[in-house]
Amino acid sequence: MKNIILVGSGNVAAHLGIALQNYNYKIVQVYSRSIENAKKLAQKLNTNFTNDLTQLKTADLIIVSVNDDAISTVLSKLKNTAIVHTSGSIGMDIFEPNFSDFGVFYPLQTFNKDIELTISEIPFCIEGNSKAFEKRLVEIAKNLSSNVITMNSAQRKQLHIAAVFACNFSNQMFSIADDLLVEKDIDFKILLPLIKQTIAKLNTNKPEAVQTGPAKRKDIKMIQEHINLIQQEDIKELYQKISDSIIKTHE
Amino acid sequence: MKNIILVGSGNVAAHLGIALQNYNYKIVQVYSRSIENAKKLAQKLNTNFTNDLTQLKTADLIIVSVNDDAISTVLSKLKNTAIVHTSGSIGMDIFEPNFSDFGVFYPLQTFNKDIELTISEIPFCIEGNSKAFEKRLVEIAKNLSSNVITMNSAQRKQLHIAAVFACNFSNQMFSIADDLLVEKDIDFKILLPLIKQTIAKLNTNKPEAVQTGPAKRKDIKMIQEHINLIQQEDIKELYQKISDSIIKTHE
Repeated sequence: MKNIILVGSGNVAAHLGIALQNYNYKIVQVYSRSIENAKKLAQKLNTNFTNDLTQLKTADLIIVSVNDDAISTVLSKLKNTAIVHTSGSIGMDIFEPNFSDFGVFYPLQTFNKDIELTISEIPFCIEGNSKAFEKRLVEIAKNLSSNVITMNSAQRKQLHIAAVFACNFSNQMFSIADDLLVEKDIDFKILLPLIKQTIAKLNTNKPEAVQTGPAKRKDIKMIQEHINLIQQEDIKELYQKISDSIIKTHE
Repeated sequence: MKNIILVGSGNVAAHLGIALQNYNYKIVQVYSRSIENAKKLAQKLNTNFTNDLTQLKTADLIIVSVNDDAISTVLSKLKNTAIVHTSGSIGMDIFEPNFSDFGVFYPLQTFNKDIELTISEIPFCIEGNSKAFEKRLVEIAKNLSSNVITMNSAQRKQLHIAAVFACNFSNQMFSIADDLLVEKDIDFKILLPLIKQTIAKLNTNKPEAVQTGPAKRKDIKMIQEHINLIQQEDIKELYQKISDSIIKTHE
């Protein structure tokens, strides 16, 4: 599995392509619907490019890193070949019945453009339709990362939901905090040490075990005082609902 | 203001006492309701202790670090002296009319027992009842931390609410993620690199600017799929409400 084709030219494809070449895999071709995007990534990787799925070269593996909604359209245009997608939320059934070696190669990360990340620390969640193919995928992933886990599609979907809570929803909590501080002319950066301390605790503790604050202490008086001070109705409601959730967790 | 009395023997009092002695302040006495706790902290600080507020020595400053609910009782037993409390949620009016130099000396942190923290990175929020007294408090805080801000009680209360969102509520998001993963036999630690990446972005970006995920993309189909997969009613509701909040933020 040394020769790889990347289908897609977004953040995941770009990060994977660069990392794979660093580990002596050869990206033989980049496909993108947009010929400009295909060319741009291909130049970075010093390889060929196309915007025509019928013109793909022969390779040991095709990695499909396109939007979830576009995966099935892409697959319908491909010949039988060893193939993976990189989506956390799409199951294995999308490959059936047209492929004999297929799987999922899901890097659990938020890829923002222009924000550097260390691919070796990213967990890779791997699934193959056979033990043999899964083993080959795990080998590739282990070259890229020290954190490789095999999991089935049901586990991966649950992981994706958990990641929405842990990352997107926690980030929304930061965003609401920022809005509250802006109202009173305070810089959000004042919260960073506290946020970093909150995260540092997770290295050695379950989140439940290190919870603090009014809801943890069941300090109903302070919860009500905070809700009274909040101006926006939807933020009042979130304060109440999440406090209820903390109280329930610590019953 | 070299001689300081600590009223209280909890985490905040202990951390402040040690840090102040490191910077050549002298803790002349520790008070706690519990004589054992007073003794324990006093021994750490190599100083005197008491459980009787009428037996306090003379000092340049008393730092009151007791539970919010206990502050007014403590204050009612003290003679007029330069004094501060360390609470984020209690205003300045609690000192009136019995004290002439009073203020707030609020370290913005979650102090868990047995978890180390670097006091020099903790933001200190300072308020004094006069410019002169505030200046003296700022001087003390600047010895302990590179991050000292003066703010009024309304700002401090808002900061406290923001900190509940940024720390307690984000931690609840991690806790819910943990529960979801436990259901499917997946270790929460798999999410740590993703969480750390989410936080790292905040060093140089507003949280709103680095949001990702289904709600940010207004991917209503995936939001509904996730809600259908979640088992608990209250967690379904939180998923919906926080997704709504993200969608509203990014309208």
